[in-house]
Amino acid sequence: MIKRSEWEKRHQHRAKVLWFTGLSGAGKSTLAAAAEKILFDRGVRCVVLDGDQLRSGINRGLGFSDEDRQENLRRASEIAALFLNVGFVVLVAMISPSAEARSQIRQRFAADEYAEVYIQCPVEVCEQRDPKGLYQKARAGLIAQFTGIDSAYEPPVSAELTIDTQSQSEEESIDKLVDYILRHV
Amino acid sequence: MIKRSEWEKRHQHRAKVLWFTGLSGAGKSTLAAAAEKILFDRGVRCVVLDGDQLRSGINRGLGFSDEDRQENLRRASEIAALFLNVGFVVLVAMISPSAEARSQIRQRFAADEYAEVYIQCPVEVCEQRDPKGLYQKARAGLIAQFTGIDSAYEPPVSAELTIDTQSQSEEESIDKLVDYILRHV
Repeated sequence: MIKRSEWEKRHQHRAKVLWFTGLSGAGKSTLAAAAEKILFDRGVRCVVLDGDQLRSGINRGLGFSDEDRQENLRRASEIAALFLNVGFVVLVAMISPSAEARSQIRQRFAADEYAEVYIQCPVEVCEQRDPKGLYQKARAGLIAQFTGIDSAYEPPVSAELTIDTQSQSEEESIDKLVDYILRHV
Repeated sequence: MIKRSEWEKRHQHRAKVLWFTGLSGAGKSTLAAAAEKILFDRGVRCVVLDGDQLRSGINRGLGFSDEDRQENLRRASEIAALFLNVGFVVLVAMISPSAEARSQIRQRFAADEYAEVYIQCPVEVCEQRDPKGLYQKARAGLIAQFTGIDSAYEPPVSAELTIDTQSQSEEESIDKLVDYILRHV
């Protein structure tokens, strides 16, 4: 197998997993997609693993019970590891509400190949944004176990990077994120 | 999201999934690894998804029942699709014994992004090679549902490429494989 170090040499940057956690509507997917575009233009090999996208593919069939959520995250972390092995910067955008589950994900990786990115935004603001209409559905009882409504979100206490999307503009958030990534890959 | 065509332009080659099927010991992993090395040296972005490797990671917990085998292949095909999306040549090395399951995998992809590679070798020869000692274990009753022993292998009838590892040397097999890939990516 080609070693990661050989890929990193070819790509001229280091590989890394950046695990975005935060409420639905906080801006995880938006920021990941924006960063992907900028990084691609700068020659960085970067891929986004988006929770919703994975649920329509490899994680099809998994629900939102604690067990299924854990399996959902486990598979995402294994896929992230495969991309890491070919020298990619992997942006994983998943709610990842459980501190314990995030801790397990972190342990899957070496310290220097992993960073947790907390996309911080109060649930009231996320609910107001409600880009996919999910909060409305959850309030109407059409979605059960919805994080922030009837399922807990445990905020990170040791995230390597926190981006506050309530007080910062989208542009400021993207700048902060891309700057962090470029300094660490 | 960055489009595959943008990645292909950057990599200066096309993306493709090559799905290797054949008995245990036929040479799938060996040929895939050898091709990966040569392709890497030629600047082709290439990744191997090896069945055994996936079973120790994302497919951990899956067994060898028909249902688990199918899920095993389904997940591999979804991961292959993720790598395809970032412009990679993906070499998937899995026994894939069922014609019906292979047909489903093929349908997951567009015609020009997928090729089936049959690594052909009689079971008697594979059993003689027995690189992992698995045939011996299967004969001793320590492994159940082992393909070629007590579980059927249905040979492909429409593989895009067939490599006969009984009559050809390893070097000839690698040459034929790499030549095919380079002509199709």
